[in-house]
Formats: sequence, structure tokens, C-alpha cells
Amino acid sequence: MATHMIVDGERLVRRLKELGSLGVDQDGRLTRLAATDADKLGRDLFVRWAKEAGLEVFIDRIGNIFAIYETSENSGAAPVMMGSHIDTVIDAGKFDGCYGVLAALGVIEAVKSAGIHLARPLVVAAFTNEEGVRFTPDMMGSLVYVGGMDVEEALQAVSIDGKLLGHELERIGYAGKRDPRFPAPEAYVELHIEQGPVLESFGMQIGVVEYLQGISWQRITIDGVANHAGTTPMDLRRDAGYAAAKVMDFVHDLAMKYSTEMVGTVGSIDFEPNAINVIPSRATLTVDLRSPREERLLAAETALADEIRSISNTLGVSVRSETLARTKPVEFCDDIVDRIERIAELRGFKSVRMTSGAGHDAQMMARLCPTAMIFVPSARGISHNPDEYTPDLDLINGAHVLLDLIIDLARKH
Amino acid sequence: MATHMIVDGERLVRRLKELGSLGVDQDGRLTRLAATDADKLGRDLFVRWAKEAGLEVFIDRIGNIFAIYETSENSGAAPVMMGSHIDTVIDAGKFDGCYGVLAALGVIEAVKSAGIHLARPLVVAAFTNEEGVRFTPDMMGSLVYVGGMDVEEALQAVSIDGKLLGHELERIGYAGKRDPRFPAPEAYVELHIEQGPVLESFGMQIGVVEYLQGISWQRITIDGVANHAGTTPMDLRRDAGYAAAKVMDFVHDLAMKYSTEMVGTVGSIDFEPNAINVIPSRATLTVDLRSPREERLLAAETALADEIRSISNTLGVSVRSETLARTKPVEFCDDIVDRIERIAELRGFKSVRMTSGAGHDAQMMARLCPTAMIFVPSARGISHNPDEYTPDLDLINGAHVLLDLIIDLARKH
Repeated sequence: MATHMIVDGERLVRRLKELGSLGVDQDGRLTRLAATDADKLGRDLFVRWAKEAGLEVFIDRIGNIFAIYETSENSGAAPVMMGSHIDTVIDAGKFDGCYGVLAALGVIEAVKSAGIHLARPLVVAAFTNEEGVRFTPDMMGSLVYVGGMDVEEALQAVSIDGKLLGHELERIGYAGKRDPRFPAPEAYVELHIEQGPVLESFGMQIGVVEYLQGISWQRITIDGVANHAGTTPMDLRRDAGYAAAKVMDFVHDLAMKYSTEMVGTVGSIDFEPNAINVIPSRATLTVDLRSPREERLLAAETALADEIRSISNTLGVSVRSETLARTKPVEFCDDIVDRIERIAELRGFKSVRMTSGAGHDAQMMARLCPTAMIFVPSARGISHNPDEYTPDLDLINGAHVLLDLIIDLARKH
Repeated sequence: MATHMIVDGERLVRRLKELGSLGVDQDGRLTRLAATDADKLGRDLFVRWAKEAGLEVFIDRIGNIFAIYETSENSGAAPVMMGSHIDTVIDAGKFDGCYGVLAALGVIEAVKSAGIHLARPLVVAAFTNEEGVRFTPDMMGSLVYVGGMDVEEALQAVSIDGKLLGHELERIGYAGKRDPRFPAPEAYVELHIEQGPVLESFGMQIGVVEYLQGISWQRITIDGVANHAGTTPMDLRRDAGYAAAKVMDFVHDLAMKYSTEMVGTVGSIDFEPNAINVIPSRATLTVDLRSPREERLLAAETALADEIRSISNTLGVSVRSETLARTKPVEFCDDIVDRIERIAELRGFKSVRMTSGAGHDAQMMARLCPTAMIFVPSARGISHNPDEYTPDLDLINGAHVLLDLIIDLARKH
């Protein structure tokens, strides 16, 4: 199932650099927010490369770009789809999303030039507004594509700069005619940088992504009583700040206890009045819980709710929590995951099965068809940042795993 | 040692209300910051009342006001001094400071009208800039008075609105000629609202203040590594926020362990980048430790420093602490404290020995002469706030304890 074929690595690296040079704002930051002029620059370049490769390009109504390689032999068969996104965050790196799209294009070019006969067409997808910075929600293009959001509703989304997505797509020339869910794929595979430190830490070349974590975001608001830090004895306090520390401890200890299958983070906190000599009357903190297993996430949420009740009773504070976001874990296709692992081994790469901690278009696609992801290392785990970096060799290794997998998936009927 | 004499309680309450009606700013807030026009209004009223009571009024170079009751019998003897301050914070209550000054005036009026012969003159002091809101440091007038700060240096202090204290005192007519430390008292007693919840909570009328807490203020800065909350396994994190929670736990547990003689508070905290899905790279928090015993405060500071080292090693974060303020505890005069307790008992008031958690002019005066404080209850412990409140009866009870104590102290040579 592994081939000795190669993807043009030098071209892949060069294209990543060229795409990453477009959309630099006045502060020198790479910023291609969805449906902006900068996004148009990136889209136009990808479309040009796809057409130069002899692919047919379609745009759907939500602006997703599909570059299709079809032959008379396989025309009409459900395609094998690869893809990711080429929109970015503000002050982005060059690899997130773009790598998956450009490696997929390189895979098709390699297949074409080798003249391999496939039973299925191949498609590269570049989904609209994956980052969700300019329009909410994130992963919007793939969400609409799989039918999780109505296209009309999505086109009415208002940007942080007050524009309608529908108008912005028209303005930049990417309001397509095709209804989303064309083409309906046989399978979807997304190659992506890890955006975490695991592969680098363990000296692995390939991450075989079995799961994508479910995410539970809560805001917890603790109300105590502001009193003088000097004149209020310890046992007469209702200290919202100390109660917040107990929540932080609990989240950390819970995640450590189940660290093979969950992470927990308190990333933000605010005290009121936030003065050195006043006992905090209010603490507001966020809790980010993630797990690849829904039962674990549910159990963690229940345990946190119990702990909050206990803290409230013990410390005489009132505590309330609100859900800010909640997604279920995604289990990728066993069969494709197994194939990725075997291909990596046959190619001589060290791989590890892992869970994606971040959200990706693949989690939407998994609702529609057999789906999996391939990760390559991110230096120091840094992402969404100009320091985002993956060595050339790792980029090319990942493209080769994708190449073999796609041939494997597209050869069969 | 307890008399059956009374202070005119109705007049005391009326004067507190009248003084508290002066210096209301455009937002309706009682605000008499030191050496402002509003402060002048308060000073002028107090001086008028003192002169109407037949007292001689002196102003020293730092603007402290002394109203003296001296007779031919005791002229030249070291006086017994009572006092506090009449400057306020922004959006203040009517009782903090003013109560001690006006009750002292009422005590002298009671002594005068009863025609009691005393071996020592009596003095009411109203010290400049106790609150320290407009000029740094706080308790400036009493600090200069006891020789803890040079008067020339103090007059050069620059206000938050860019003015020199010396000029401002001249402008409002309170740049006196007398060198500070005139008159040098035999003893100093300060009657004050508790500004804490203890007396009310325990149903006591009188707080017999044995100690004034030493204060240790530190800012603790924890540096970790910002990473993605989803993709970074628990054991690869350097979470500055979790480290901050451990510091909060330690401060709380330490203060609870020694709760009879210390309090500990983390009143302010800030995370960077303070985002729901990013592990905090930096946490900055403040620690406020207070104890009436210097050894306890030193031990707490050492234990905190040890804990910080341990947290740093265990969690892989770097932690540094800076001292923001440090004052030693003050032990008030045993003899005066004993007298206050006995007088309260003879007057039929429930009293409790306690520690002042806040700073007062008495802590400066204790450097110079035998000193103590008397507290009366603060409703719900609220102070530095328009809701600051002490029931009339409690105000009058406190004045009666002060009256008996002053007669007791001033009768002897």
C-alpha cells in the first residue's frame, strides 16, 4: 500500500512560502481573514495553481473552493477528497491550513504525472472561514458543506467589521453557484500541522489522528463579599478569589488524573475590585475541558458542577456557570486510521496515534463520510503565530503519507 | 476610674453629620482630599467649633491642627492628646477619622463644663493627609509630627493633580508656623470606627486595641509558557495560571493556620494573554499579609518565599516577588490598654481585645509616647464607602470610654 512515488517537495515548500507572503497587513502581519481582499489574493493564487495543474475548479455558494482531478475512467464516481483552509488568523503563521491544501494539490500533480489509473476522482477542498476570526462560527465552510448550517443563514453572518459574508464573497468574486455538498465524497483526509508539542517531544514524524477532542467551554462567576484585607478575620470572609483558586485546582487535578484522555485549562480570570487590600467580591474565570471521549467529558462536567456546589457551600460564595461552547468528540474512521499507520511504517516514519486538540474542517466532514487526519510536527508546538514552523522534511514526509493513502483509497471502487 | 459624666451625644452626632455634608463633589460623593478646598471647608468648621469651645488652636508647618485646653493649674505640663484626621478618601463615609476628632472635642467640652481639675492639658489633634489619596505617604501628618519624615521633604510632596503640598497648605490657609512635635504629649489615644466586622459579629460595644498589624505587601509575577489549551498535554505545560492558584492556596492555608494572629489576602490577579483557549504565559498577583506579631509576619514571608521556590521547581515556571510595602506591627501601651478594658467594664459595655487591621495615626504616635486605640462597631464592616455606618449609641458609648480614660490619664502628674 505504500508506493515509492514522490510529491515535488521543493515546489510544496516554495508554494507555502509564496502563499504565506500574500496578505501582509500594514503592521507586517500575515492576516488573511475570510472574504477580505487579502483572502482573495490567497484564493486567486491557489486557483491559478490548480488550473495550471489541469484541474477543474468549482466554487460553491458559501465560497468553498474545489479543485477536481477526474478522468474519463472515473468520471461520476464519488471522489476522494483532501483539503483544509487557506484563511488565517491575525498575525498568522504560513502552515496552518495552507499546508493541507497545497500538499493535496501536490499529491494530485504527482498522481497525474505518474499516469496512475484511479477508480475515483480526487478533489482538493479549500473551505471558507475555518478560523472564524472575522465571521462566527469557525469551520463555517465545512459546516455548511455537510449540512450543519443553512447556507442562507451563513451568508447573513456579519463580520467584526460590520459586513455581510454574502456581500463580501460577491465582492471578492467567490460567491459560487453550486449548492454546498457538491461533490459528495467517498472519504475525506486532512493533512495538517499538529499545532501542539507532542510529535516533536517524542521524536515522531507522523501523527495518526484517531480522535478530535470534544470541547466544553464554561464561564464561571463567583460572587463573594468585598471586605478590607486587614480588618476582616479569615473566618468571616467570603473570598471569591480564593474560591476561584479552588476551581483552578480542581480543573487541574481532574485533568491530571485523566491526562491520557483529557486536558483542562483555566485560561482567563478577572477579579473585582482587583485591589491589593480588598478581598475580591467577584471572580470570573473560564474553564476549557477537552476529551476525545464524550463519556469522559460528560463526567468531567458533572464533577466540576459538583465541585462548584461544594465550594459554594464551604466558602459561603455563590457560584454560577454558563456554557460558552460545547462540541462532541469526533472519532475518525478506523479503517483510514489503520491505513495511515501502516503507510507511515512502510515509508519508514515513526508515528504515534493521537488526538487532535484543535478544531479542524475534518470534524465537520466526519459527519458526512469516512474521515481521518494526518499530523506533522509543529516546532515547539507554536501555532497561530509568525513563529509557527515545520521543517521542510517533515512537510514532505506528511505529503508522501497523504499521497500513498489517497492512491490506496482511490484505487478501489 | 469610670465616671458618671457624659459627653453631649446629640451634639456629637449632629456635628458628624454637618462635617460629613461638606466637601461633596459634583458627582455627589463626599471627598475631602488633603489640602483641597473641600479639606479647607472641613478644617474651618472644626477650628470654629474648637474656638467656640474656648480652645486655643495651633497649626504646625505640615498643617496638623491642635486644639488645646489648658488651665493655669496645668499650663506647661505635657498634655494628654486625643485625635485622628478629618481628610477623607474619594466617595467616603462620614465616620472614618472625623469621629475620633469630634468625640475628642466633645470630651474636652464635657471636662470643661464639669469644671474638673486636671494635672495635664488636653489636646485634640487633626492630622494632615492621613488617607494618603492625594499625597504619598498616608499618615503623613503624624509621621512628620513624630519625626519619621522631614517636614521640608513632606512639603515637597506632589499631589495626584500635580500640586506641591506646601503650596496647597498655604493656599488654603493651613501652612502653620509651629515646628511639628509641638506639643509633645504624655500619652495619645485615638477613638475610631473599627472598619471591620468583628465587634458587630460578636455583639461587642468596645474594641480594646492592643496591636496594630504589621503589613507585608508583595507583587508576585509568574512566567510560564503560553500554549494551545487543546493541543498541549497536561505534562508538557508550564501553566502560570495554575501556579498562581497554588500561591493563592498557600496564602489562604497559612493565614487560616495562624488565623488568631494573621490574615492573608490575594486581592488582585491578572493573566496574560487571558484567553479561554490559551494556557497563561504570565500571572501577576498581589499578596497582602498582616500580623500583630513581627515574628509571625517574618515567618509567613519566609514560608511564602520557600513555597514560591517549590512551585517554581515543581511546575517549571519562573516566579519572582517584589516588596510593595512593609510596616512592622505596633504594640500599644499595656497600661492604657488595661485601663480601656476596665473602663469599658465599669461602664457596662462588652469589650474585646483586638488588633487593628488598618493603619492609623496612632501607629505613628506610638513611636513618641504611650499610645492606644478604642474601636466602636462598623455596620457590616464597611468603610471607605458612603455606606460606612455606626449607630448613634455606639458612637456615644465610645466617647464615654474616651472621656473616662482621658480624665484618668490627665489627673495624675
